Amino acid sequence: MNLLGIDHGGTSTKLLLVDDDSVVDRATVATGSFADLDELADGLLAFLAGRPVDRFGLTVAGTLDPVTQVVLSSANLRWLDGLAPAALLAERLGVPGTAVQDGAAAATAEARLGAGRGAEDVFVVALGTGIAGAHVMGGQVRAGAAGGAGEIGHLVVTDGPLCSCRQRGCLETAIGGVQLGARWLEAGGVWSGPGAPTAREVVTAAEGGDPTAVATLATATDALARALLHLLALVDPGLLVVGGGVASAPRWTVEPAVRRLRELATFHRVPEVRLAELGSWAGAHGAVLAAGAVG
Amino acid sequence: MNLLGIDHGGTSTKLLLVDDDSVVDRATVATGSFADLDELADGLLAFLAGRPVDRFGLTVAGTLDPVTQVVLSSANLRWLDGLAPAALLAERLGVPGTAVQDGAAAATAEARLGAGRGAEDVFVVALGTGIAGAHVMGGQVRAGAAGGAGEIGHLVVTDGPLCSCRQRGCLETAIGGVQLGARWLEAGGVWSGPGAPTAREVVTAAEGGDPTAVATLATATDALARALLHLLALVDPGLLVVGGGVASAPRWTVEPAVRRLRELATFHRVPEVRLAELGSWAGAHGAVLAAGAVG
Ligand SMILES: [Zn+2]
Ligand SMILES: [Zn+2]
Repeated sequence: MNLLGIDHGGTSTKLLLVDDDSVVDRATVATGSFADLDELADGLLAFLAGRPVDRFGLTVAGTLDPVTQVVLSSANLRWLDGLAPAALLAERLGVPGTAVQDGAAAATAEARLGAGRGAEDVFVVALGTGIAGAHVMGGQVRAGAAGGAGEIGHLVVTDGPLCSCRQRGCLETAIGGVQLGARWLEAGGVWSGPGAPTAREVVTAAEGGDPTAVATLATATDALARALLHLLALVDPGLLVVGGGVASAPRWTVEPAVRRLRELATFHRVPEVRLAELGSWAGAHGAVLAAGAVG
Repeated sequence: MNLLGIDHGGTSTKLLLVDDDSVVDRATVATGSFADLDELADGLLAFLAGRPVDRFGLTVAGTLDPVTQVVLSSANLRWLDGLAPAALLAERLGVPGTAVQDGAAAATAEARLGAGRGAEDVFVVALGTGIAGAHVMGGQVRAGAAGGAGEIGHLVVTDGPLCSCRQRGCLETAIGGVQLGARWLEAGGVWSGPGAPTAREVVTAAEGGDPTAVATLATATDALARALLHLLALVDPGLLVVGGGVASAPRWTVEPAVRRLRELATFHRVPEVRLAELGSWAGAHGAVLAAGAVG
């Protein structure tokens, strides 16, 4: 069985060709090189270069109607809104495929193939520009009754600033990659580089001894610990897997957050915490898993 | 199939005899009249008066080892600690039986037989002296990986007082039945009755126009709304069922909390909210359900 995973992100598109369980080929293409689904299909055919594919899976950044697979709202690729991209690609490629929400795809892959391998009950947290969460039980994401479960990034845990979700003090405003940079500047952090600083720059400053960066990260990891405490009280997952760009400096992010979580926990059982393993390929692996699940 | 449900609470024990799906007999006995399991068995035999029973279910207030069914810690009946009460009763009654945690039993019954009838995905909140929660999916409580899920009463949602769980500001300190009375007194509420006031007395004062009671209830329902908001973000249940003594005055408790929840919700989908239907018999019905599930 040859399966094609397509992780169609806002900036790059990752392609993964899998034969049963072994990776045959992979490629990363700038998403900007595709103006529409026809051009994406052309790109896929060029990547395949005549190699056979039985089914494909396609990630979508945004929300997806679970029945019709129409994109309801795509965060980064507005031209997808209202389209059913998997059906359209299936026509062009001549094989069946399915679309899957990108966060759910990456979480499922981390839970089944990555750091959660072998565990039955895993909560995956992705600390990126946005913060996503997914509860994976028996290899399946529990999406929630209205598709809204796992929104750990939008738990109110500080008295902080306005969030994109219109609440104030969400976890994402404290530790989201871009927001972390903004909090550092607000606290008096000095930044002379081009563009706005993100988590990476705050960590670099902290490593250089910048006390404002150290304090900003302490506030951010305290907020993460408080959000995780809510998760333990309500969901009590068997294993916690933390990934995403902000987690790539675990000594300044995940590790102090888990230490703080242990300090704050009273009746809660703090589960084992593992760093994600699949990195930026989690979504593509999740797309392959979705392809494999098509009837 | 004749099933006996025994809801063995701290103050009263409720007995329910069910033939298939119809209730044959019920009784409420003061728990204090049983000094030990032998006396409880005698009480059960007297209630049965020779009527046949195939299996029984017994609720335990506290924590229960899921494998051995030994009581690890019973909140109100310390003499049960370290015993396997279902095995001991089975010997005395001559029929097999099972023990079940009382909160899980009541939640399962509300979800399957009470207000959650017909729904696949229900979160049950019991607002009593303590506050319990249970996520019931497909008729089964999801206990959590360490048996700790659903602890909505111990989400930190205020900057309030120390809780029995050693956190500060838990929902239970704001709206637990006894705590609500304490918050009213702290705020200057005037109480001359015997004993300490509880939720019932605060509601009576509010109905009489006491502004301190009205304000205390507003603070309490705001805290409940904030805890429910965390629940929607993380779990996104299909239906919310709210019961317990504090919910018996819904106009002052559940209704303003749900109104506040709708004000606070942004991306969250507020599910339908129903009041619990089985009242103080929920635990006994849950014990019968547990009895029916014994192999
Ligand atoms: Zn938010
Ligand atoms: Zn507490």
